[in-house]
Amino acid sequence: MTARGADAAGPRTASVQARVRAAHARLRDVDRPEVWTLLLPEADALAAARRIDQRIAAGEDLPLAGTTLAVKDNVDVAGLPTTAGCPSYATDPRGRPGPAPRTAPAVQALLDAGAVLLGKTNLDQFATGLVGTRSPYGPVRHATLPGRVSGGSSSGSAVAVALGVADIGIGTDTAGSGRVPAAFHGLVGIKTTVGLVPTDGVVPACASYDVVTTLTRDLATGAHATRIMVDAPGDRSRRRGWPADVRLALPEHPVVAVPRAADLDALAPSWRVAFGAAVAHARAVGARTVEVDVSGMLAAARLLYDGAIVAERYAAVGEFLAASPPDADPTVAAIVLAGASVSAAEYVRDRAALAAARAHALGLLDGCDLLLLPTTTDHPTLADVAADPVGVNRRLGTYTNFVNLLDLAAVAVPVGTVDGEPFGVTVLARAFDDQPALDLAARLLAPVADAATCAVAPLVVSGSVELLVVGPAADGAARRTLTDLGGRCERRARTSDAYELRHPDGGEPRTRAVHPRGAALARVAPGAGASIAGDVWRLSAGALGTLLASLPAPAALGPVQLADGSWVVGWSCTPRAPDEERPDAGPGRPAVLATQGTR
Amino acid sequence: MTARGADAAGPRTASVQARVRAAHARLRDVDRPEVWTLLLPEADALAAARRIDQRIAAGEDLPLAGTTLAVKDNVDVAGLPTTAGCPSYATDPRGRPGPAPRTAPAVQALLDAGAVLLGKTNLDQFATGLVGTRSPYGPVRHATLPGRVSGGSSSGSAVAVALGVADIGIGTDTAGSGRVPAAFHGLVGIKTTVGLVPTDGVVPACASYDVVTTLTRDLATGAHATRIMVDAPGDRSRRRGWPADVRLALPEHPVVAVPRAADLDALAPSWRVAFGAAVAHARAVGARTVEVDVSGMLAAARLLYDGAIVAERYAAVGEFLAASPPDADPTVAAIVLAGASVSAAEYVRDRAALAAARAHALGLLDGCDLLLLPTTTDHPTLADVAADPVGVNRRLGTYTNFVNLLDLAAVAVPVGTVDGEPFGVTVLARAFDDQPALDLAARLLAPVADAATCAVAPLVVSGSVELLVVGPAADGAARRTLTDLGGRCERRARTSDAYELRHPDGGEPRTRAVHPRGAALARVAPGAGASIAGDVWRLSAGALGTLLASLPAPAALGPVQLADGSWVVGWSCTPRAPDEERPDAGPGRPAVLATQGTR
Repeated sequence: MTARGADAAGPRTASVQARVRAAHARLRDVDRPEVWTLLLPEADALAAARRIDQRIAAGEDLPLAGTTLAVKDNVDVAGLPTTAGCPSYATDPRGRPGPAPRTAPAVQALLDAGAVLLGKTNLDQFATGLVGTRSPYGPVRHATLPGRVSGGSSSGSAVAVALGVADIGIGTDTAGSGRVPAAFHGLVGIKTTVGLVPTDGVVPACASYDVVTTLTRDLATGAHATRIMVDAPGDRSRRRGWPADVRLALPEHPVVAVPRAADLDALAPSWRVAFGAAVAHARAVGARTVEVDVSGMLAAARLLYDGAIVAERYAAVGEFLAASPPDADPTVAAIVLAGASVSAAEYVRDRAALAAARAHALGLLDGCDLLLLPTTTDHPTLADVAADPVGVNRRLGTYTNFVNLLDLAAVAVPVGTVDGEPFGVTVLARAFDDQPALDLAARLLAPVADAATCAVAPLVVSGSVELLVVGPAADGAARRTLTDLGGRCERRARTSDAYELRHPDGGEPRTRAVHPRGAALARVAPGAGASIAGDVWRLSAGALGTLLASLPAPAALGPVQLADGSWVVGWSCTPRAPDEERPDAGPGRPAVLATQGTR
Repeated sequence: MTARGADAAGPRTASVQARVRAAHARLRDVDRPEVWTLLLPEADALAAARRIDQRIAAGEDLPLAGTTLAVKDNVDVAGLPTTAGCPSYATDPRGRPGPAPRTAPAVQALLDAGAVLLGKTNLDQFATGLVGTRSPYGPVRHATLPGRVSGGSSSGSAVAVALGVADIGIGTDTAGSGRVPAAFHGLVGIKTTVGLVPTDGVVPACASYDVVTTLTRDLATGAHATRIMVDAPGDRSRRRGWPADVRLALPEHPVVAVPRAADLDALAPSWRVAFGAAVAHARAVGARTVEVDVSGMLAAARLLYDGAIVAERYAAVGEFLAASPPDADPTVAAIVLAGASVSAAEYVRDRAALAAARAHALGLLDGCDLLLLPTTTDHPTLADVAADPVGVNRRLGTYTNFVNLLDLAAVAVPVGTVDGEPFGVTVLARAFDDQPALDLAARLLAPVADAATCAVAPLVVSGSVELLVVGPAADGAARRTLTDLGGRCERRARTSDAYELRHPDGGEPRTRAVHPRGAALARVAPGAGASIAGDVWRLSAGALGTLLASLPAPAALGPVQLADGSWVVGWSCTPRAPDEERPDAGPGRPAVLATQGTR
C-alpha cells in the first residue's frame, strides 16, 4: 500500500494471465464485494489476458501489458452498463440506458496498451462526494481500516488498487474525487489539467471541471497511464492541448509555495505535524519554500457546492433525479436538485467570481513553480460520515474543492504514515505544468539521497524537441538556462564518430561567459572524429526558439548525429574568425554566428 | 469614406492642434448631434492637443499623435460619466453612478500614444443592438444616407469616423457591433480574438464575449491602434495572451473558406453579386477559395439572443433595468429582462452546445487559413427598423452574431460600393489568427497589382524573433517552409561587412534539397567580408523551434550581425567536412550540423 518511487515500474516478467489469476486470488482473500458495481468473470479477464500474452509473443510492444485495470462506473466500457453508482440510471430513458456502445477513449487507450480490465467500480453516486459511502452498492470501506471511509468519489477504484487487485484504478475528479481516496490509501492520484484527458464517455459531474484520473501504487505507472490517456483521441469541444511553450521539467531548485499556519486550521493536529515534515522533505530534496496566503483559494471552494456551479450537476443528471428513482442516494439527490433553482445570472456571476479568484491565485503563485498542500484534513469513520454526511464531506474537500475551479493541475502523493495510517500531500501546479508537478511528486517519493536523479517518464513528447549539449555547454549556466526554459535533461548520449570538439581560440575554452562559449562541435569525416558525450535535453518548440533567440556568440544550433544514428539538435559553439574582436554580449541579442569552412 | 490600404497611415505633418480644429470645423458643418452622448468642448480637446504637440517638440515619439479619438459611451474615460446609452445608469446606484474613476486601459493606451479624445459616442443602449436606433440620445443616422441606419451598437463612433471627424472610433463588439456599422460606412472594423484587448472599464454586454474594437477609415490606423490596445495592461481574469506558436502572417497563397450559395440567402440580391466579386478579388490576390457549409455556424447565432446566453446581459445590467428607469430603451429592456428567467442549467446546456458548435466550426476550417463572409445582409432604413426592431436586427446579425460565440477573430473591410453604397465583407479567423486576418484584409483593400507586397504593421511583436535568410536559402522552398510556420517576411537587410558566403562543396550551390543547402554564411574579420543581403522574417518562438528541429544538413541557426549593428538569428548553411558523404534527409530529423573551424 506504500507508493513506490519513479523507477518502480518496469516490464512485468510474469505472464499477463498470471497477473489476472493473482488479482482474482487476492480478490477472494479480501472479500470486498462493495468495491465493484460489476466484476467481470475471471474467465473473461483471463481470455483478455491471453490475447495480450499472444500479442506480446508475436512481438508487439504493449507498454501496459501485465497491468490490471479497475474503471470507475461513471466511465463507459463498451458492452457494460454505466450506472454512475445508480443502477436505475443504466435502464431509465432519462439516464444512459443499456450497455455503453463504446469504451471511453481514455480507457480504450489503456486497453490498447495492454491493460486488462477487471471490472467497473463503486463510487459516490454521480461522482458527488468525497467519502465513498454515498452508493446503493454499499459504502466502500477503507482497504485496511474497515471502520474508516475509503474516500470518494473514486472509492472502488482506490480500494481495488490499494488491495493490490488492480494496478491502475481509473477515477474521475471534480472536487477531489481522485485525490482524497489516494490520500487515505497511500496511493498516487494524478489529476491533470482540465481538458488534457478526453472526457468522452464519462457521465458528467460538473462538465466544465471533470477530469479522468489515475490511482496507482507507484508514480511511474500512474504517469505512464496518464500520458497514454492524454494522447487518446477525443471530442475537440472539451479538449485542450499542450501549449507550444509547455514546461517539461521542474527546475533543480524549484520555488514551492506552502500555506501559512493559519491556512492549516482544518487539518487534524497529528497531520499538521506530518505536513510540516513534508514541507521539510521538499526542502531537503532541493525546493525553496515560500509561505503564501491561500485562504482566498480555499474560499473559492464554496463556489463548487454552495454556489451556482452546482447547476452543472443539475444540467447533467438533474432531470433523471427529479423523477425520484428509488436507488438515488438522498444526499446526492439533494445536492444535485438544489441546482434546479439556480438562475443563469447567478451562475454567470459565480463564473466571473471564479475567474477573479483564478487571477488572484495566479498572482499569488507568481515567482513560484508549484504549491504544496495537504490532500485532505483527517480520516473520518463511517459513523462520522453517517452522522453528518454533508459537513464531513465539506471538510474533507478543504484542500481539493477549489483546484479544478481555479484551473490547477494536481498530483496527490503519499509521504509517510501517521500512527500507522497513510498521510498524503498534493503538489499543485498552474494549468499545463503537469510535468513539473509530477517531478516534485517523484522527488517527494524518493529517498533524499536519490531525489536529485529521480525522474518520471516524460508526459509531453509530441511537439517537443531533443537537444544535445556537449562539452562545457553542459555546465551550470547552461543548465540553469535550460531549466529556466522548462527543459528536461533526459539522458546521456554520444555523437557519432564524425565530430571533433574544437576551441574557438585554438586554446583552452574560456569560462567567463554567461552562456557557454567553449568548445565547438565540428563535423568531420565519419570515423575521423570522436564520439563525444553530452546530455540530451527535451525542450518545447517555444523554449527552443527562445533559447536560440537569446544565444550569445559564438554559438549555433543545428542537427547532430548520435552514435545510434538518430539526429537531434545540437548546441555547440562555433569557432570565431581569426583576429576578430570577441563581440560583447549586448542586452538584446548578444551573439554572433561564426560558422567557417576548412577549405 | 473609402478605406485606404495598409500603407496609408504615416506620420501626420500638421500639428495635433490643427487636426483638432479641423475636426471641430467638420463637426459644425455636419450638424450630427446624435453622434455624441458627451462632446468635449473644443477648448478642452485643443488643450490636450497642445500637450501632445509639446511632447513631440520635446522629442517624444508618439505613434498616434495627430489622430482624433471617439469613444463609445460604454467605455470608461476618467472624469466623465459612462451612460452606456442610458443617462440614468450614470446616476443610479445600481448602475455606474458618478464620473468614471479611471480610463479603461485600452483607451488609456491610445491616449498615451498621442490620440486626442473628442468625446463619448452614442450607441444602442447597453450595446444591445446592431441598428444604432436604440438610444434615448436619438437614433444615429447614417453618415451620408440619413434615411438609413448607421448600424450599431457602435453607431456614434462609426459615424464620427465616417464623417472624418474622428480618426479612430472605439467600439465594442459582442454580436457584430463593431462590424455592422463598419460595413454600412465603408470603414475597417477590427474585432480581435476575445481576451486580447483588456475589457476593464467596459460596461459588459455579454461579458464572456465582449471585445473592444476599432473603427477606422484605413486598415493601418486600425491595426496600429489595435496593437497598442492588445499591449495595454488589464485584469488577468479575462485576459488571454498570444500563444507561443502564434501565426504572424498569411501564406502567399492562403486557403480561404467561402460560404455556399445557400448560405447567402439572407443577403440582398445586389449584395450577393458584390460578395461574389469579393470572392473573385480574393482569388485575384492569391487566395485559393473553397466552399464550406457554414449553416451550422450561422445557426449558432440563435444561441446569443434566443438562448440562455442572454442571461449574461441580465447579470450585467438586469437589476438596473428591472427597476424600470424612464430612459430605458424598451426593446433593449425586453431583451435583457428576458434573461432573468433563464435557469443556470439551461445556460450550462447552451454553453455546451456552443462548445460543440465551436468544435464543428474548427473542423470545417481544417485546412483553411481563413473564412470570408459578407459582414451584414442589407442596409435598412430607419423606418424599416422602427417597424420591426427585433426582426431587422436579427437579420443584420446573420453573419456576425456567431463569431465571438465560436471564438473567432474578425476584420470587417469595405470592398467597394453597390449602387453608390458601401459594401463590406469580413475576414474571419481562428482564435489568435488575428494577424493573418489583417493580412488578407490588407490584400482585399489593395489594388490587385500591389496585393502581393502590401502588409500591415505586425500585430504581434513581443515574444517573436527576427530571422535573417540569405542566399539561396531565400528561395521558394524556404519561403514555403517559413510561411507554413506562420512566419512573416518583414524587410530586406544586409549583414555587417564581416561575413562571406561560402559553398559547402567549394563549388556551386546544389539545388536538389528540399530545404536550402546552398551557401554558408561565414563570419570573418570585420571589414574583411561583404555586407550580404537577405530577408528578415519574423517568427514566433514556437515556429523558430519547430524550424530548427526540422532543419536538414548542412544548416544551422545562430546570431548574425546586421549592417546597423543589431543582431538577429541567421539561417545559413554550414560547410560540410571534406570527403563526407552527404547525409540523406531521413524522415524524422534529416539534418547534420557541420560547423568547422579554420584553424
